[in-house]
Amino acid sequence: MNQRAWLTLAYGYISVAELLLLKERFGAIDAIAAQSEQRLRDAGLPGNKAQKVASPNSAALDDASEWLADERHHIVAYGSDDYPELLTQLSGPPLLLFVNGDIDALHLPSLAVVGSRNPTRGGIQNAVNFSRHLTRSGFAIVSGLAQGIDTAAHRGALEVGGRTVAFLGHGIDRVYPPQNHDLAHQIAATGALVSEYPLGAPPDKRHFPERNRLISGLSLGTLVIEAARRSGSLITARLAAEQGREVFALPGSIHNPLARGCHELIRQGAKLVETAADIAAELPHLAIHLQQNLIESTPNQSPLPDQDGDYAKLREMLGHDPTSIDELERRCGLTIDQLSSMLLILELHGEVESLSGGRYALIA
Amino acid sequence: MNQRAWLTLAYGYISVAELLLLKERFGAIDAIAAQSEQRLRDAGLPGNKAQKVASPNSAALDDASEWLADERHHIVAYGSDDYPELLTQLSGPPLLLFVNGDIDALHLPSLAVVGSRNPTRGGIQNAVNFSRHLTRSGFAIVSGLAQGIDTAAHRGALEVGGRTVAFLGHGIDRVYPPQNHDLAHQIAATGALVSEYPLGAPPDKRHFPERNRLISGLSLGTLVIEAARRSGSLITARLAAEQGREVFALPGSIHNPLARGCHELIRQGAKLVETAADIAAELPHLAIHLQQNLIESTPNQSPLPDQDGDYAKLREMLGHDPTSIDELERRCGLTIDQLSSMLLILELHGEVESLSGGRYALIA
Repeated sequence: MNQRAWLTLAYGYISVAELLLLKERFGAIDAIAAQSEQRLRDAGLPGNKAQKVASPNSAALDDASEWLADERHHIVAYGSDDYPELLTQLSGPPLLLFVNGDIDALHLPSLAVVGSRNPTRGGIQNAVNFSRHLTRSGFAIVSGLAQGIDTAAHRGALEVGGRTVAFLGHGIDRVYPPQNHDLAHQIAATGALVSEYPLGAPPDKRHFPERNRLISGLSLGTLVIEAARRSGSLITARLAAEQGREVFALPGSIHNPLARGCHELIRQGAKLVETAADIAAELPHLAIHLQQNLIESTPNQSPLPDQDGDYAKLREMLGHDPTSIDELERRCGLTIDQLSSMLLILELHGEVESLSGGRYALIA
Repeated sequence: MNQRAWLTLAYGYISVAELLLLKERFGAIDAIAAQSEQRLRDAGLPGNKAQKVASPNSAALDDASEWLADERHHIVAYGSDDYPELLTQLSGPPLLLFVNGDIDALHLPSLAVVGSRNPTRGGIQNAVNFSRHLTRSGFAIVSGLAQGIDTAAHRGALEVGGRTVAFLGHGIDRVYPPQNHDLAHQIAATGALVSEYPLGAPPDKRHFPERNRLISGLSLGTLVIEAARRSGSLITARLAAEQGREVFALPGSIHNPLARGCHELIRQGAKLVETAADIAAELPHLAIHLQQNLIESTPNQSPLPDQDGDYAKLREMLGHDPTSIDELERRCGLTIDQLSSMLLILELHGEVESLSGGRYALIA
């Protein structure tokens, strides 16, 4: 492919619809990028775009070429073999994807896991939990690298050695929010960071809804963990439904304002899910594939943490009666953070049940 | 009406279908009760029923007549003006209702509020809360006098001066469970206890599903607050759906086993509700009636408990940050029980919000 020509079109904000128009008139990508502003205008391209393609910002293109020198950095053009089939089905597919990581990660059966940037602790646990289980069921996890549920979703996948894809609302060479710098590195190491924006493009409010169509678009379904009414996650869910993909939502307490968005989705027809298995059950065409992945992934599961003195103590102090984490803090002499993490691990191993009111109990 | 004849048929376990058959043959109720066993058999009545009607247990009928001497005690026969119209729509309407209380309570727009006998504290709060709000919206609350959600539902209605109806799975002269003795008295004082079983009939496992058809049958809709999978509340909900009535269910945390039954109902098409207003919105044909009731009932609302020193202290100690009840116990020097009740009252007045993890906060 002619990288420079593709970058020129992408930096001119050419849409796929416009690309198809220009190809009909001028043939190959190289030929399009070589046209004068007037000829591009005559072909129907708006003036500002024609100008940008005919007189590109050479320094910006040089920066992009330099960025592409890294072997983990790629651009994936519309129509190429590397371009994800599911994105071609969108009404406005991206012309060019900037990818930091493994392009193969864009071709796995994927599920989007999204939600509030300010979730409850329970919401974070649920996001990690579902993400881990879905990863083990053979799905790649797609999200948006935002704080809160997105972060928990990416982390859950990474923790069990899975692949996760983050779509960014800004240039691929930036990280936003800054505290997710390390997480972004981990995602790129085994999965992929993906953006359709030019290098250096800042996080822009208008980009995020656009970006959301790619999160839902690459995914067979979108799972909303916790979301307020009128929040970005509901936009992603709406886009998923418009794209003919499944929408899944976690119910929650009627007193949790972050369950309201999920309840709204369920009322509108989203599938109510309680477990990762509920999601797999809705995607039966993947059953065989998932079954294979499940068998392959089983040996990778971490062993039960039963040798560790702290875990033995926690089990003993917990028992089968619902017990709050505050009470466990008193009984075990461990910090809330330690307990929280240990309880989550025991929960993921099916040893501990998380109950209402932030209480826990051993499963009999 | 001829009470003795109706009691004779009821104590013979004559169904409404059989009643209609016998009326066609013999005319009036008195005439039916006067037939010989052979003639009743010839008319198509099963042998055991024919025997019971032709040779009734006089002592049992005397007991029932004696019970009926109390002015609050009634029998309501199928076909009479006092018989609730909604029950005539059932596929197996009861022949005779024993009523302790006010017959008018059977003719109000009603909603069933049902759920687990072993609910969470949050479930009890929700039941009380919904029941109070629905009562204030002009509904009578129908339930089954069981422990847990049923009890909370009846109490919620009574607390705001509303009317509530309890259908019993045993004779009207008994109270089960025994700890609901006082509650039963309160219900009978303004609403009604109702049974279709002979006096003295013990609580029988088989009676409860039968009884459930009356709970849903007298109601425009059935609200399930908390219910395990495969529980009696789901039977009531299924019967409501079969009877063409609305089914409402409260969502809850995916970690609360008592939310699972509700989630199952929502998946099957029950309306997900977060507030009492969600229920009223689904019953628009009642809107005008409810509006009137709302206006009438407003002056009856209890005043805000703002004069009380303990409430002032609680408000001050609570603040707008989510705070656990354990923490409030430490801060206020009040017992968990006191705090729980005070927080509920403030919540019902819209001053306090109940958050996830058993935490509370003042509403700004």
